[in-house]
Amino acid sequence: MAIQEIPAKSLEAKKFIEEQAALISQAVGSNVAINALSGGVDSSTVTLIGHKALGSRLKTYFVENGLMREGEPARVVSLFRDLGVEVELVDAREDFFKALKGITDPEEKREAVTQTFYKKVFGRLVRESGAKHLLQGTILTDVDETVAGIKRQHNVFEQLGINPEEAFGYRILEPLVQLRKDGVRKVAEALGLPASVYNRMPFPGPALAARVIGEATPERIALVRKATAITEELLAASGAFQYMAILHEDRVTGMRDGKRDFGFQIEIRCWDSHDARRAFPTRLAWETLEDLSLRILDGVPGVVSVTYNIAPKPPSTMEAV
Amino acid sequence: MAIQEIPAKSLEAKKFIEEQAALISQAVGSNVAINALSGGVDSSTVTLIGHKALGSRLKTYFVENGLMREGEPARVVSLFRDLGVEVELVDAREDFFKALKGITDPEEKREAVTQTFYKKVFGRLVRESGAKHLLQGTILTDVDETVAGIKRQHNVFEQLGINPEEAFGYRILEPLVQLRKDGVRKVAEALGLPASVYNRMPFPGPALAARVIGEATPERIALVRKATAITEELLAASGAFQYMAILHEDRVTGMRDGKRDFGFQIEIRCWDSHDARRAFPTRLAWETLEDLSLRILDGVPGVVSVTYNIAPKPPSTMEAV
Repeated sequence: MAIQEIPAKSLEAKKFIEEQAALISQAVGSNVAINALSGGVDSSTVTLIGHKALGSRLKTYFVENGLMREGEPARVVSLFRDLGVEVELVDAREDFFKALKGITDPEEKREAVTQTFYKKVFGRLVRESGAKHLLQGTILTDVDETVAGIKRQHNVFEQLGINPEEAFGYRILEPLVQLRKDGVRKVAEALGLPASVYNRMPFPGPALAARVIGEATPERIALVRKATAITEELLAASGAFQYMAILHEDRVTGMRDGKRDFGFQIEIRCWDSHDARRAFPTRLAWETLEDLSLRILDGVPGVVSVTYNIAPKPPSTMEAV
Repeated sequence: MAIQEIPAKSLEAKKFIEEQAALISQAVGSNVAINALSGGVDSSTVTLIGHKALGSRLKTYFVENGLMREGEPARVVSLFRDLGVEVELVDAREDFFKALKGITDPEEKREAVTQTFYKKVFGRLVRESGAKHLLQGTILTDVDETVAGIKRQHNVFEQLGINPEEAFGYRILEPLVQLRKDGVRKVAEALGLPASVYNRMPFPGPALAARVIGEATPERIALVRKATAITEELLAASGAFQYMAILHEDRVTGMRDGKRDFGFQIEIRCWDSHDARRAFPTRLAWETLEDLSLRILDGVPGVVSVTYNIAPKPPSTMEAV
């Protein structure tokens, strides 16, 4: 089934919202539906459209998978409470780290996060809530990239030959699947979401698990979380499309207190891009690069080396994992 | 036994050369001695002092260990032929790669190179030549770093509690052990060595094996050799103290021809330093960084990612391995 794209420039956001809310109402009927909110623009937009359609019959969960950024769960729950939407925080950290244990291959990591999310955690929430529908923020680019085999998105089932109802016990509604990112941003703004949401930098589905090369243990996630907080703080003013810190698996030689120390390396990426299809490393000022390096060496235990990505996409990708 | 340092500023190069040549003559007597020439300033200087002392009774070998840079063996042999010194090229590539097989730990790699060099290859050359002495370019910094435990230099035996005569069957003469790098450069210039030698950038003992994180296979050495040639060409005009390309063991996601490609990463380091004790990443122009990245992505098969080191020494070290 070919999906009919709605380009951002011909999108009428208010009308789109009404239509999608009506379709959701029709599909769910008098039942309950659920959705997961990550705080990204896609899931935030779906949450508000769904809430418009179903009111309190939409149960919105924030899944604390242990892979989120510093302070992220509390920030997202509090923001939506201010918008009148109650979000339930689900602590599933143990489930995710158990599923990620021993896995180093990027695709297997994505798959472990996907399976844990949709099968284990959401399976449980569906049973508890009695919901028959999951609302999800899949956009057209997710579908494209999955079909092209570039990236296996965690939220594209049909294209993977998976029937969610058979696999997980619920149906999936994807109100944003005809849009690209710029279209979603227009809809988010029309819904009254703040600029911090509709202009939010992209963040990967597997969250910080995609920011460590090799195994995503609680200890390694804690390190990259610290590096991410520093990087996001210092590059907030850069105006770049996206920036990130990546913990490498390779260990490199360094020295501390005059002694040899076999330590960690953090790689920083900061991208200039319009649509994420092509991207170039931002020509950051040397003062900024040096600040970043010193703050990370000082603030992230065991790190002895920091690098900055200088390769464009393609042949690089935005994320390393 | 404490070594008496001769600082560069109080060094009388001509006098130093005469004295060291006399000491070598005295030690070797009418026998034959051998030495290994790598083309670096230390071993080049020792070769010329030894040649002055012993003439053709000094047998000079260039050990082709398979870990040298592009064109290096031929270039070094030809340069010394022009200076009137015959250098014998010894093909020991198989010995070294056999010893390095399966080894990923940096110290074990150094140890494998050291053992192969001093025990296997030089043991054989000593037996064949009948030499009782090996002339070697150890300098004071090598001794310091080994004693401090920062780096286990491949040419410092006494400090490691090794008696070379017992271990390898020959004695070791170290005419440069009272000097640091700046002193050696003065002596090299006084000996008539060209600036390309006495100003040559430092290069590690284990050669390109120190420029790959993880196992040093012939294939991986070939990749880092290509990246090294490009890096040295493009940074020759930088005026930096030292620059290098490092092949990581981590694989990162990239894309080629629209498809996902799990490829290699090359890290570039370029250092500003006076004495290598402290060092700072050179603030290269963005045009240079972008040229480097594109040339490496284009010229080194399988590479999808290039980074530039932004961490100072300490806590980094100059080399990664």
